[in-house]
Amino acid sequence: MTTKNTSPSIFQRVALIGKFQADGIGQVLDLIFDLAKTQGCSVWIEEETAKFTQNQHRPTISIKDIIGNIDLAIVIGGDGTLLGVGRHLAGADIPVIGINMGRLGYMTDIPLQEVAMILPQMLAGNYDSDSRHLLSASVIRKGNVTHEGLALNDVVVNRSSLTGMVELTVKVNGSFMYNQRSDGLIIATPTGSTAYSLSAGGPILHPRVEGIVLTPIAPHALSNRPIVLPHDVEIIVEVAGGKDVNAHFDMQSLSILQVGDQVRVKKSQKQVTLLHPQGHSDYKTLREKLHWNEYPSSF
Amino acid sequence: MTTKNTSPSIFQRVALIGKFQADGIGQVLDLIFDLAKTQGCSVWIEEETAKFTQNQHRPTISIKDIIGNIDLAIVIGGDGTLLGVGRHLAGADIPVIGINMGRLGYMTDIPLQEVAMILPQMLAGNYDSDSRHLLSASVIRKGNVTHEGLALNDVVVNRSSLTGMVELTVKVNGSFMYNQRSDGLIIATPTGSTAYSLSAGGPILHPRVEGIVLTPIAPHALSNRPIVLPHDVEIIVEVAGGKDVNAHFDMQSLSILQVGDQVRVKKSQKQVTLLHPQGHSDYKTLREKLHWNEYPSSF
Amino acid sequence: MTTKNTSPSIFQRVALIGKFQADGIGQVLDLIFDLAKTQGCSVWIEEETAKFTQNQHRPTISIKDIIGNIDLAIVIGGDGTLLGVGRHLAGADIPVIGINMGRLGYMTDIPLQEVAMILPQMLAGNYDSDSRHLLSASVIRKGNVTHEGLALNDVVVNRSSLTGMVELTVKVNGSFMYNQRSDGLIIATPTGSTAYSLSAGGPILHPRVEGIVLTPIAPHALSNRPIVLPHDVEIIVEVAGGKDVNAHFDMQSLSILQVGDQVRVKKSQKQVTLLHPQGHSDYKTLREKLHWNEYPSSF
Amino acid sequence: MTTKNTSPSIFQRVALIGKFQADGIGQVLDLIFDLAKTQGCSVWIEEETAKFTQNQHRPTISIKDIIGNIDLAIVIGGDGTLLGVGRHLAGADIPVIGINMGRLGYMTDIPLQEVAMILPQMLAGNYDSDSRHLLSASVIRKGNVTHEGLALNDVVVNRSSLTGMVELTVKVNGSFMYNQRSDGLIIATPTGSTAYSLSAGGPILHPRVEGIVLTPIAPHALSNRPIVLPHDVEIIVEVAGGKDVNAHFDMQSLSILQVGDQVRVKKSQKQVTLLHPQGHSDYKTLREKLHWNEYPSSF
Repeated sequence: MTTKNTSPSIFQRVALIGKFQADGIGQVLDLIFDLAKTQGCSVWIEEETAKFTQNQHRPTISIKDIIGNIDLAIVIGGDGTLLGVGRHLAGADIPVIGINMGRLGYMTDIPLQEVAMILPQMLAGNYDSDSRHLLSASVIRKGNVTHEGLALNDVVVNRSSLTGMVELTVKVNGSFMYNQRSDGLIIATPTGSTAYSLSAGGPILHPRVEGIVLTPIAPHALSNRPIVLPHDVEIIVEVAGGKDVNAHFDMQSLSILQVGDQVRVKKSQKQVTLLHPQGHSDYKTLREKLHWNEYPSSF
Repeated sequence: MTTKNTSPSIFQRVALIGKFQADGIGQVLDLIFDLAKTQGCSVWIEEETAKFTQNQHRPTISIKDIIGNIDLAIVIGGDGTLLGVGRHLAGADIPVIGINMGRLGYMTDIPLQEVAMILPQMLAGNYDSDSRHLLSASVIRKGNVTHEGLALNDVVVNRSSLTGMVELTVKVNGSFMYNQRSDGLIIATPTGSTAYSLSAGGPILHPRVEGIVLTPIAPHALSNRPIVLPHDVEIIVEVAGGKDVNAHFDMQSLSILQVGDQVRVKKSQKQVTLLHPQGHSDYKTLREKLHWNEYPSSF
Repeated sequence: MTTKNTSPSIFQRVALIGKFQADGIGQVLDLIFDLAKTQGCSVWIEEETAKFTQNQHRPTISIKDIIGNIDLAIVIGGDGTLLGVGRHLAGADIPVIGINMGRLGYMTDIPLQEVAMILPQMLAGNYDSDSRHLLSASVIRKGNVTHEGLALNDVVVNRSSLTGMVELTVKVNGSFMYNQRSDGLIIATPTGSTAYSLSAGGPILHPRVEGIVLTPIAPHALSNRPIVLPHDVEIIVEVAGGKDVNAHFDMQSLSILQVGDQVRVKKSQKQVTLLHPQGHSDYKTLREKLHWNEYPSSF
Repeated sequence: MTTKNTSPSIFQRVALIGKFQADGIGQVLDLIFDLAKTQGCSVWIEEETAKFTQNQHRPTISIKDIIGNIDLAIVIGGDGTLLGVGRHLAGADIPVIGINMGRLGYMTDIPLQEVAMILPQMLAGNYDSDSRHLLSASVIRKGNVTHEGLALNDVVVNRSSLTGMVELTVKVNGSFMYNQRSDGLIIATPTGSTAYSLSAGGPILHPRVEGIVLTPIAPHALSNRPIVLPHDVEIIVEVAGGKDVNAHFDMQSLSILQVGDQVRVKKSQKQVTLLHPQGHSDYKTLREKLHWNEYPSSF
């Protein structure tokens, strides 16, 4: 289905990273492998992806080796898969294309059935790109850093299901903001503003907004509204009360907290560059994901 | 401080139940003990309460023996304390007076500093009363009831903090309502509508409304709004997906669920009768708790 | 397209009422006219409907004459059309069937393309029915009733677009509830809970819930949440401040208010009986209107 | 009450502008006039302010003449008063101090009773300052600009109270975003994010966030959430349907719109500089205005 006349790829070395154990991932990898090959790329399949899919006749590469040896990562799966890859590649100057195997994602915005049409154009250099900053978080216990993590979507401090509310003291650049009793607090990037934060009542932040949104989860005080802060601040969340409290990074890894622990969050210097089909519109993605009206109603 | 002329109590046998380990609970118990005694009541202190407070010179009674032997329970603590007592006494036809040791509660609506003025009037028969139905819940696994519980506020099915969203299938009187992906679902009585459900965005239900409110916690679909159902329905919440899912009863006890488990909730025939100071207004309590404006602003 | 074997109609005298000036209303009226005729009904077209559609060869009836002379009203249009008819027929013991010419409504729940299949069954007596109470409202100025109105969805007291906030004092059964500064206040029936009230953040009330919901519109105090009251109360909304304030009945008619005016709202004894296709599910309608998930997601 | 040792004012020429007809404004003007005089300022009272207060023995200045002849404006009133003054002085490089005669405002953050203590310090140069950008809006009808306006808080396009929903088509930098049916749309600066937008469910934006928030008012589609855009975009709101639609500037002036009209909004190059007491905290103001918890609760 690829056009014979497509220009050669501007990316020499391409890695394919897939959602392990996803149904049909093998065929999808084959398709994309061949597409990229046709345009002159050297292509590797990420080691674990290859293992799960028995694409053992393809060259493989470890996730560790991707950095420094690869010019483009193509992620196949959903936004969750891309989050994990994004944190790994953050700061490595390797752009990422996201291909969605199920429902369209915010970041994995190329549907599987359009890959053969869209991907060759992108490899040929016809794409839009945007860069997404990550959050960098440290957990501090009695003055010592006990954990460090990155998040592309959000850092979440929340209570366990087995306990009641958590009480958090929040400071911004050293200034006391508030004490909050709630199920937890979501600290999200613009990228994360359409994920968990949106479910908890947070606003959507356009990817270009230089801000971080703090969205409380089921806050006890009804006036605890989401607040958007400039992206150059340091946010300190201190556990003032509650049991079994955790800090989560993109809801994919976590650190167990005690009363008195601090989670310090700020914008990481690391970023991930996403490539989109040319003419891509963030609003179109929002409309489709959120069922926003595209056409005026008849009155 | 009590008026000499207060009429004798219309309640013969009174039990005092306190929040264990609360600061100053001993003195409060003494005060109330003496007040009730003065009006001719026989007074017992609940066994565990007495133990923790060293009021060992007072007659005690076990929580088990209260049912059948007592005409009035006076609860000293917060709404949380009253919830526990309420579930225990549910259906036993023993009215409850709630005295608050801290910030005014919705149910424990007599502040400590007004006890000496208000309580004698209430013992003399000058009170308003309202009855609150409980929810009755069963956990069903492969056709067998594995757990049964009562709730005065709410039954909550939610995910653990260590995992992502839970997926719930909700049926009402056997009719399929929806599949919901969220942090969890709160099924609340009017009593519970001002507790966790309110924090999660639910409406306030006046205690006399014959309804049950279902409030989703951080739902993935933005159109999953709270819904109020008639109080005579059976609500079935089935765990369709997710790990480490729990069912909570008043957030005070819980049952661990597996995928496929059902939580069946309906109105219990059991109820708790709350006594309030005469002329009590539910709206006044709401105004004070929620900082609602009492006076018109100047424009 | 009707089945030959359909039983005769159990309704003798049927009136058709349509949305004036709707595109294609003429053909729809013809179709339904013939369907009803085939099952033995006497059929009239409401006068104004007929005028606009030039169905002048059909017998007509004035809206005034429908009461007392008709056994069933079939409304063709949207929920807005049915609201107007519903207020007119309220209390007249004439059931209503709603056929939707556009997007499915909550009350006009028979899509045009299924009329030929569904309507004959309903005329033959195979339907579900539910009764919806209306609200009755009086406007009181200096002790005198200056306006009376009915509402099937809601009574709304709001400010004009040309002015700032309105300030309202709300009392329930004579008890002061709150002063509220906002764009306005929606007092909705369960029927109206899925209309304007839902847009303003109100909960959904199942049609069988015996309650009235008060939903503030953009309230100044963030703790002014929707509240559900029992349906036997009288709600008094007094204009305490603001200019160009109006009371609306189903957003279709209105009364201009002054500071000091009261709008008194209570449940009307009048009701409207809606007929639905047999096996109708309120939850199915909600799912379709609100894009609720019908199928479990793959995790 | 002023300290004798206060350093002289760094502002030579000071204008006082008050809320006309506010109770007690005369005495307040006298107090502040004398305070500023004592520190060596030349002080004028704005003409209209003076007229209403009969402070006719003081030198006056027209609002027109303030620009170019004054170094500091002191506004006495509430945030509403400051909004009007702010739009007038925008771009004129005259900083503004806001003194509140009633409840503390977000911008008029000096309470009357602390003026004598705080103002002399600020005149002496001990203050914090922040600059607030305005929005610039044009109304376009058939290709011609029919109205231009500035807003410090927000541009609001909404329906009249006499009509139903408005339908708006929203474009950002020429890209179609959505069609929205609602009561209206609020386009707010960070300054305006704590005003009408907050009541309608919008997030709080810290004053330093370079963003503009779009908050729908009672939107028909439940997924129409507030969205924060970068502050360098042009937002076009086109009236696609509805009657009696208006565009408001800070809810203080308006332009009447027709179907087809466009309201084009972008950041103005003009800004207003607000002076605050030294050590001022935006979070403290938020805590006090929103009743946020300052102290951890006892669990």
